[in-house]
Amino acid sequence: MKHIAILGFGIVGSGIARVLEQNAAAIARTIGDEVGIKYILDLRDFPDSPYADRVIHEIAPILDDPEVALVCETMGGSHPALEYSLAAMEAGKSVVSSNKEVVANYGDLLLRKAREHGVSYLFEASVGGGIPLIRPFLTSLASDRVTEICGIVNGTTNYILTKMKDEGRAFGEVLAEAQRLGYAERDPSADIDGIDAKRKIIILTALASGILPDDSDVYAGSIRGITVRDIEAAERVGGVLRLIARTSISDDGRFSACVTPMIVGNANPLAHVNGVYNAVSVTSPVTGDILYYGRGAGSLPTAGAVLSDVAAILSGAAKAEFAPVFRRMPGAAIPFDEQRFPFYVRADGSAAQAREKLEAVCGPVIPVGDDAEFETGDVTAAAVRRALPDAVILPILR
Amino acid sequence: MKHIAILGFGIVGSGIARVLEQNAAAIARTIGDEVGIKYILDLRDFPDSPYADRVIHEIAPILDDPEVALVCETMGGSHPALEYSLAAMEAGKSVVSSNKEVVANYGDLLLRKAREHGVSYLFEASVGGGIPLIRPFLTSLASDRVTEICGIVNGTTNYILTKMKDEGRAFGEVLAEAQRLGYAERDPSADIDGIDAKRKIIILTALASGILPDDSDVYAGSIRGITVRDIEAAERVGGVLRLIARTSISDDGRFSACVTPMIVGNANPLAHVNGVYNAVSVTSPVTGDILYYGRGAGSLPTAGAVLSDVAAILSGAAKAEFAPVFRRMPGAAIPFDEQRFPFYVRADGSAAQAREKLEAVCGPVIPVGDDAEFETGDVTAAAVRRALPDAVILPILR
Repeated sequence: MKHIAILGFGIVGSGIARVLEQNAAAIARTIGDEVGIKYILDLRDFPDSPYADRVIHEIAPILDDPEVALVCETMGGSHPALEYSLAAMEAGKSVVSSNKEVVANYGDLLLRKAREHGVSYLFEASVGGGIPLIRPFLTSLASDRVTEICGIVNGTTNYILTKMKDEGRAFGEVLAEAQRLGYAERDPSADIDGIDAKRKIIILTALASGILPDDSDVYAGSIRGITVRDIEAAERVGGVLRLIARTSISDDGRFSACVTPMIVGNANPLAHVNGVYNAVSVTSPVTGDILYYGRGAGSLPTAGAVLSDVAAILSGAAKAEFAPVFRRMPGAAIPFDEQRFPFYVRADGSAAQAREKLEAVCGPVIPVGDDAEFETGDVTAAAVRRALPDAVILPILR
Repeated sequence: MKHIAILGFGIVGSGIARVLEQNAAAIARTIGDEVGIKYILDLRDFPDSPYADRVIHEIAPILDDPEVALVCETMGGSHPALEYSLAAMEAGKSVVSSNKEVVANYGDLLLRKAREHGVSYLFEASVGGGIPLIRPFLTSLASDRVTEICGIVNGTTNYILTKMKDEGRAFGEVLAEAQRLGYAERDPSADIDGIDAKRKIIILTALASGILPDDSDVYAGSIRGITVRDIEAAERVGGVLRLIARTSISDDGRFSACVTPMIVGNANPLAHVNGVYNAVSVTSPVTGDILYYGRGAGSLPTAGAVLSDVAAILSGAAKAEFAPVFRRMPGAAIPFDEQRFPFYVRADGSAAQAREKLEAVCGPVIPVGDDAEFETGDVTAAAVRRALPDAVILPILR
């Protein structure tokens, strides 16, 4: 019997217990031994849970117990998740995390601590829920060079944008419904304002480039300002509105990362990702584009991803895998305002005047519809705003 | 320096040499050492190749050279690929294969030989070209139970069906064009008649169930008979025609595997896979549906997949991974005629009479359009043919 501890018995933590029961045979076959939960750390008690007797409120017994080889950190938030994870690795235990915040903020530190103590720090569940995304970076694509990652990594915003389009309803109304149905949090800003997606694209950028961006390196756009008119405009441009997390990595190691609502052309597979689904496209010179698609959240899929890491560690596979190194590199990030896209631009007033102003700065543009609406060539947001400071602008992804 | 040998210097074999050059630094970083090609086995000479001096025409020097730790088998065909692979493993060398035919026919034997000699036999490149598909089965999904796999795994047929739909052209005309453009072979039957796709779904079935189906266990339908009328009918049913490879695995280990043209409903992501692209959807109770999408063929992507296996072996990761066991189990396959689908059915003559005959055997059906066209509930092909022996029938995938 291999003993593990779970830090945080919320949606993901309790999912781990359920999946461990449900797939006990398959897990034992992979690992070569049974896996048991010895401790559950949480502030709360769970008197009605079959695991009630294993719930503790302090980390010390876990750190002190040599039988615990591995800790699953499913607490969320940076603190004390960071301190507990570092302490567990100092005590010789591997750590598996589903916590995108702590990985995005402190991944360099956590991976360094793992190397120093000869243990593993894995975080498959931190991006894309149950979609196997991070391990392919560390195995299948390890011999290739990833140049671009582009994805829909937040199910809540994708659900809202899908509903707004399908039903022609306003943002606030659909958000309220999503909150009622449990697809959006009471305080929805982490999702709606692109903060959750930013953490995920920070992690993916680090996996692809080796450089962990600072939080301030990555622009996060909100979908709060998206109107039904924008969604109709996307259709005229031949696409749909989606909150896209994107990073592109140049040969010199600099990267352009952002989270922003974009008009995604219908020929792009991301345009067909609807509802709470997630999808991530990874581009590399050898392999071309690969798209991974699935449910990006949920108790069981995320717990399944945690357990795939647990299995990799307890079977010994992770030890031999290429453990990534995340470094910091000030100045490696290209600011959002300098990143180039084709833009959809909508101004008020005379179409002719707006076009003249826009073309004076951005070069030739294509009219979209009858009003002052245009599609630019590859330009920067800064250039468009210089030409038309009050226009609605949305980058386009073909 | 780690030395490898390549068996077969065709499209994939020569791609391996190119990718090894192109990504030398990344590969060395993953493996911890450089990788060099010591031998290339081929019947031909390549006097103009930079590798001309490494080309040999017999397997013996490779088997006898203790410096060769690993052999890439990219010959295609069952023989002598099987004999050479077995001999290499008997000589203590791991084998990486891109050869779906030999894996589908002899995967059980090859994996057993690998176990007996403590070496690895990996075949990521045999399905889905550069899409990482097999390793996720062995790692990320190893602790889950896969219940269904459904995919577009042949780019040639998908290209032809996409063109027929987009341009309203007949099968023969589009096939001739695909042959001119090099998307279809001079003898196209392995693609067109579903044989290539059958080999891939045999391999995927074995990965999911542990049981390697016999060739005769899996029905392979052809797209030769598909007409523009069928493609228009698919639109009326709310979908598109695609050659689908599918397997579903029940709790008792029996499986229903087939390759057949199907009408794929537009809500299914597979309906949006166009041209030479491949996509495979994997369903499991914990993770839900995951879709992998990318170029399923081509020299560089397939070579990249071979090299991901090479890296896994030479870095030591593969040793610790869960090596699959493929068994044979006569009677585990459910014949195609007994597999249940909703069907699109088109008969000649009176719609009322056809409906009466169909409903007498298959229960209530829904008319599709004005002619004798219907959609059934979940029934078997045998039942539909009993009712209307001469009707055109196509299974539907929603």
